[in-house]
Amino acid sequence: MAAIAVMSGAIMFSTAVAAPSAPGQEADAKSTVSRFVLDNGLEIVVIPDHRAPIVTHMLWYKVGSADEAPGKSGIAHFFEHLMFKGTTNHAPGEFSRRVAEIGGQENAFTSYDYTAYFQQVTPDALETMMAYEADRMRNLVLTEAVIAPERDVILEERGSRVENEPGGLLGEEVNATLYQNHPYGVPVIGWMHEIEALNRADAIAFYERYYAPNNAVLVVAGDVTAERVRTLAEQTYGMVARGPALPPRLRPREPEQNTRRTVTLNDPRVSQPSFRKAWVMPSYATGASGEAEALDLLSEILGGGVRSRAYEALVVEQGIASSVGAYYQSDALDDTSFEIYGRPRGGATIAEVEKALDAEIARIAEEGVSEDELAAAKKRYVRSLIFARDSQRGMAHIYGATLTTGGTIEDIKKWPERIEAVTAEQLRDVARRYLVPDRSVAGYLLPIEEARP
Amino acid sequence: MAAIAVMSGAIMFSTAVAAPSAPGQEADAKSTVSRFVLDNGLEIVVIPDHRAPIVTHMLWYKVGSADEAPGKSGIAHFFEHLMFKGTTNHAPGEFSRRVAEIGGQENAFTSYDYTAYFQQVTPDALETMMAYEADRMRNLVLTEAVIAPERDVILEERGSRVENEPGGLLGEEVNATLYQNHPYGVPVIGWMHEIEALNRADAIAFYERYYAPNNAVLVVAGDVTAERVRTLAEQTYGMVARGPALPPRLRPREPEQNTRRTVTLNDPRVSQPSFRKAWVMPSYATGASGEAEALDLLSEILGGGVRSRAYEALVVEQGIASSVGAYYQSDALDDTSFEIYGRPRGGATIAEVEKALDAEIARIAEEGVSEDELAAAKKRYVRSLIFARDSQRGMAHIYGATLTTGGTIEDIKKWPERIEAVTAEQLRDVARRYLVPDRSVAGYLLPIEEARP
Repeated sequence: MAAIAVMSGAIMFSTAVAAPSAPGQEADAKSTVSRFVLDNGLEIVVIPDHRAPIVTHMLWYKVGSADEAPGKSGIAHFFEHLMFKGTTNHAPGEFSRRVAEIGGQENAFTSYDYTAYFQQVTPDALETMMAYEADRMRNLVLTEAVIAPERDVILEERGSRVENEPGGLLGEEVNATLYQNHPYGVPVIGWMHEIEALNRADAIAFYERYYAPNNAVLVVAGDVTAERVRTLAEQTYGMVARGPALPPRLRPREPEQNTRRTVTLNDPRVSQPSFRKAWVMPSYATGASGEAEALDLLSEILGGGVRSRAYEALVVEQGIASSVGAYYQSDALDDTSFEIYGRPRGGATIAEVEKALDAEIARIAEEGVSEDELAAAKKRYVRSLIFARDSQRGMAHIYGATLTTGGTIEDIKKWPERIEAVTAEQLRDVARRYLVPDRSVAGYLLPIEEARP
Repeated sequence: MAAIAVMSGAIMFSTAVAAPSAPGQEADAKSTVSRFVLDNGLEIVVIPDHRAPIVTHMLWYKVGSADEAPGKSGIAHFFEHLMFKGTTNHAPGEFSRRVAEIGGQENAFTSYDYTAYFQQVTPDALETMMAYEADRMRNLVLTEAVIAPERDVILEERGSRVENEPGGLLGEEVNATLYQNHPYGVPVIGWMHEIEALNRADAIAFYERYYAPNNAVLVVAGDVTAERVRTLAEQTYGMVARGPALPPRLRPREPEQNTRRTVTLNDPRVSQPSFRKAWVMPSYATGASGEAEALDLLSEILGGGVRSRAYEALVVEQGIASSVGAYYQSDALDDTSFEIYGRPRGGATIAEVEKALDAEIARIAEEGVSEDELAAAKKRYVRSLIFARDSQRGMAHIYGATLTTGGTIEDIKKWPERIEAVTAEQLRDVARRYLVPDRSVAGYLLPIEEARP
């Protein structure tokens, strides 16, 4: 739900503030989202927000773990780390120190479909951020002395997040059991043995192929104008040469799933058992018209917080679960996943929790949802937008994530009305079509002595 | 077990007939296996067998489904079909008609690691076979008119073998759940939607890359001499230009498995439920010294026919199964699979069969096997060799399969003594190390109404 709430934020902002399509009304030029492309192919989106003297500078690369070559898992995330090392112009860590000195914030993240870098600073520092970011797009120093220690850092990161976390181990294998052909089945951080083998040649090949202006989207949100962003971007990013032309991002597709699958981890470190069940289904990029919107609302009604059906039934009424929920990863370049999860409470078993969650899904698939329920879910979405609207970073995130997963600014603009248009029947239909018990993948995280479901 | 029995055949032949390493004894030159390489890189193995005027001509390409690019599954097998079409010198089907006219037999097969073509004919036809086979190595006509109808044939083949066979559907998904990173998880025939998309460009690229003398092994067994094979091969295959140099066949490796996984198919077409359980483990090519040999004998003792522990316990004594067995796919370029299977009888449930099979494994892992049992298993292997020894085709198969999966002629020669050297302790150790219940993948094929285990 997190991604959805964030996505909603930008849309609210865009419609409430800019309202560019209202007839007879001039859009406030200072608040309208604009988009342009530099000669070297860099796509730039500017989201003016003059409420505070802050600017968010986010550079998104259209490359994520699902673009990695087989056997090279982890290289996209590895690269995110390497980008904080030195360039031919700046010492390692200098960029980060500079951001800290001026009281800014920065971070980076890698996902299946994108890798992004951002800084939040005062507007006068924007040019400096651009200069540093443009510099490390092409001038990174990739010696063995840089790469080997960072590989150790990543192996430790994997150790603490996965090897030492039963939930992390289970999650990876549930995911790999869900995606049997598509690279979303490979963990973003990479398989341990493949991270260990990543080397300088891999890093250089990856950098030269994917880190180029024509494979990136720059999103600048905050107290700036499009004109200023364009001028500064031309002076900085504009100096970087276009990289190789890249083929369309076509990944292997999943075959049809015919079976019900389970993945179980009994581990002495588990004190409270937990359960999850996942399905592969369309994303905004791959779904038929209205499907992803209906799935967004289905996840909200089924398991989105304390007003959801699952929470009311399992936590409040039956008292058999301490937590339950549903999650739909709506923004993805390819078919994505929908997941439900729960944790039993008191004397309840994991099998009871699973059965009760299955019953809630079956009830929606058979009887659908009421008009009131649907209207309330749409309203809760709107409320989450209002919260997200206050976050410049959240807005920039939505534009970046959408534009690197097959969407357009037009899609973001139209999204609220598409959500409004979802009918109760559509929602029942997607539940019936996609949340099929006999074609699911369930994961069980259990203490060592727990009887297996 | 089939592959093992066949493998044993050649070894017996090689040791019993040629006995090349016995001191003070001259090997019969006419019966010694010889190996040589043509200037264009074609590796040739000749296995003389003068008992009958027959010759088996087998051409093995070092390419199988596990060498396919992601998203292009099925191209290796598709190509096996295309090789029976026309060349620039011969009409479609002409080669096959010629084999039939002279009373010969022919066939072809595709596996994960190799694709092979063979004819069994009288010795005077050997040169003709070589000429045809060399011709289609490079002169195949790959037009859309050839490719499109053959793709339909393969889609139909997949339909009848997989889509209309619940056991086929389940098998594919068990396999993909077992191999989460390595291409052995992709079916040899290919995923339906990927076969549908295979096209002329894919076929040409595959042909040019893999169908070349330096990527093939020719095995000729039968009533011939090495000299004659060399002369004929030079006149036919020798005319084919060397293809591109190919990199080592390095496929992504499996990550460590931490979970217990199940895959269940409830299908109205199933009348008798059945069960299988699989593990990834070392092959002859990847195992430490003696491991694969111990696993071969373990599969024999646990589930190799009516003298095995599983058969005695579940079928004879307890009467709960109509069939049980174990299978170890020992010849594979990469880590391979070990599998047990069973089908309940009478009122027995699938859960009882699984539990009883698990108990047999646990018994070996805890207590090991007796010296008598081990000696008897080795003896049964020897007996299966004697049967296989009579098959020229079986012998040629062993040499081809071994040489295309990382083995050598020396490996084949030494294999019987390596089997003899396996100790009861080694066998218990591999059972304990690899057949771990909490790191297995179980498949359940059930009627539609069957309660799920």
